[in-house]
Amino acid sequence: MNDYQFEINLSSTKKQKPAFDQLVFGRNFTDHMFVMDYTEGRGWHDPRIIPYQPLQLDPSAMVFHYGQSVFEGLKAYLTEDQEVLMFRPYKNMERLNRSNNRLCIPAIDEELAVQALRQLISVDHDWVPNEEGTSLYIRPFIISTEPYLGVAASHQYQFIIIMSPVGAYYKEGINPVKIAVQSEYVRAVKGGTGNAKTGGNYASSLKAQEVAEKSGYSQVLWLDGKENKYVEEVGSMNIFFKINGEIVTPELNGSILEGVTRNSVIELIKHWEIPLSERKVSIDEIYEAHKNGQLEEAFGTGTAAVISPIGEFFWNDEKLVINNGETGEISRKLYDTLTGIQKGKLEDKFGWIVKVDEEKAVTSAI
Amino acid sequence: MNDYQFEINLSSTKKQKPAFDQLVFGRNFTDHMFVMDYTEGRGWHDPRIIPYQPLQLDPSAMVFHYGQSVFEGLKAYLTEDQEVLMFRPYKNMERLNRSNNRLCIPAIDEELAVQALRQLISVDHDWVPNEEGTSLYIRPFIISTEPYLGVAASHQYQFIIIMSPVGAYYKEGINPVKIAVQSEYVRAVKGGTGNAKTGGNYASSLKAQEVAEKSGYSQVLWLDGKENKYVEEVGSMNIFFKINGEIVTPELNGSILEGVTRNSVIELIKHWEIPLSERKVSIDEIYEAHKNGQLEEAFGTGTAAVISPIGEFFWNDEKLVINNGETGEISRKLYDTLTGIQKGKLEDKFGWIVKVDEEKAVTSAI
Ligand SMILES: Cc1ncc(COP(=O)(O)O)c(C=O)c1O
Ligand SMILES: Cc1ncc(COP(=O)(O)O)c(C=O)c1O
Repeated sequence: MNDYQFEINLSSTKKQKPAFDQLVFGRNFTDHMFVMDYTEGRGWHDPRIIPYQPLQLDPSAMVFHYGQSVFEGLKAYLTEDQEVLMFRPYKNMERLNRSNNRLCIPAIDEELAVQALRQLISVDHDWVPNEEGTSLYIRPFIISTEPYLGVAASHQYQFIIIMSPVGAYYKEGINPVKIAVQSEYVRAVKGGTGNAKTGGNYASSLKAQEVAEKSGYSQVLWLDGKENKYVEEVGSMNIFFKINGEIVTPELNGSILEGVTRNSVIELIKHWEIPLSERKVSIDEIYEAHKNGQLEEAFGTGTAAVISPIGEFFWNDEKLVINNGETGEISRKLYDTLTGIQKGKLEDKFGWIVKVDEEKAVTSAI
Repeated sequence: MNDYQFEINLSSTKKQKPAFDQLVFGRNFTDHMFVMDYTEGRGWHDPRIIPYQPLQLDPSAMVFHYGQSVFEGLKAYLTEDQEVLMFRPYKNMERLNRSNNRLCIPAIDEELAVQALRQLISVDHDWVPNEEGTSLYIRPFIISTEPYLGVAASHQYQFIIIMSPVGAYYKEGINPVKIAVQSEYVRAVKGGTGNAKTGGNYASSLKAQEVAEKSGYSQVLWLDGKENKYVEEVGSMNIFFKINGEIVTPELNGSILEGVTRNSVIELIKHWEIPLSERKVSIDEIYEAHKNGQLEEAFGTGTAAVISPIGEFFWNDEKLVINNGETGEISRKLYDTLTGIQKGKLEDKFGWIVKVDEEKAVTSAI
């Protein structure tokens, strides 16, 4: 089953684990990490699992200057039978390679990356939390490491995977968030890097986020960079609306990130035979739908929060309250279904789950 | 003159210097670096000069994931009297703070930064090369260092200055470069980060650069992200045209970087009483001007190359050759004047030069 062999160098000491019932997002890291190097000529080489430790980089390492970096985010879950399940890891590695292509970073072997995940999770198995709403957040990323000042693609990279036991991403949890529509700052534009998962997109989003937070909004709704008219994403999530019984989500247009959760939600909606359309959605349409009482639900989708219901939009000095600021029926059903599949409580009809320990899985099925 | 005192920890060994007559750009670094830390509550603190050394950063340090980083580039020159001159360093530190603002990074003390430069250059004085066309390239930069996964502004940063003795940035030197007009990929858009000097802008530019190079063009001419119509920049330089006797450059519009060289060129052109206009310039206008024989010169401006004449544009499957592919009169005059002032050979009428060692300067003037 697994032709990939990695050198494993186990940590001699183990860190103190945080209390799994009080986890915050992204602050605690497991005992080990995966690292693989790229140098021109040799390609990707030396995949290895080593103790979690600082990176040593020359101050001229290109990532510090020219932002050539990509990353992914996915989760693993502990089932009641103590099995560890990953949710659609191949999708993330595919997207990592699409991001790599846009950022001129050499492609990785996607199968190797999933096997690396598997082995790393096995090594740090006791870091997968089991409390309600918790999971092991996995962060694969690639940075350009060549020591060189000059605008060009790097000739050296590191591919690294770190892992963090996490609780809810938004302090609101599954409770609806309030969103400010952003029309001054732009997250991405066609021809830019909006559909790649690269640091610059997030750096450029901070200012609008700061402005929104100052007015008491927790996230930003991004409009397209060309016309400032079409809805693109919300915070770092994809966005869905329920308008007059139909689920509507912005079509992939080159500046929207192709979310794994978005894709899974679309498959579920289709499976449930609820009308769905992927198309351009203008902010005016949303405003009109709200005015006519047809904007029934709105929610963001992403690995971190899974489903994040939207209770209110702030646009043009007006507050548009959705579904009385409460979690809608579809949002709730999607959340329960997705987290149910992820935790192994519901049947995995779509083949989304990859078990970390396949052997054990087979044994227990006999 | 200098109220800033930095802790200085000198390197016990000195690196072997490269041959100053064979310098390439951005590959060799001096013996020391400047570092200052930021933590919330304490603000910027512990400014110090230390031996050039690797940075140690947690793999979750935010810069690796969310690209929150800014940088600057400026140069110092050795005069025939062995004095070291910096070119408009305050302008760079002002711009660094504008970039900081856009990227939600806490402002630095600009005077402190210039004094840091001064002391760092003094310490590594013998790294300033004196051969024709060489200089000491200075790279101040700020990176977000907080170990945290989550899209938010970091609460910890490092401000670092490293220096590199350099030769010509483009292998063409002052010889004209060939430029491909880019209409698929976009560098920046209004509302984005185009007018900030942050890594993401450069990362996103690599793909177009790669495409251009494959067709034998050394740089890309960027059009605006909204209409794909107006000229913005060339490679990582600002762009100027001479059309029918008038110098024309795209106006600052929020997506163009405000170059220090651009500003200096504008001051020189005004001083020479040559007609100048800062305005929108469409690629169609350039095409028409060329067809009518009125496109007399085109050149890029930037710290690295100072003036980089453009010999040819490739657009819509057509080659537009400018001034027979030769360096134009204004390009040459600007290059000679700017480098003359920078090297202390021409009078500094505009107050652009800051001497590294003011005391010595005063003494030698008596
Ligand atoms: C900008 C952006 N959009 C959307 C998403 C949602 O993607 P996914 O469902 O794969 O997590 C993410 C993050 O993960 C994101 O960063
Ligand atoms: C994108 C971009 N435009 C223009 C410039 C020119 O600016 P300056 O003249 O200050 O070097 C630079 C670089 O330095 C740049 O990176």
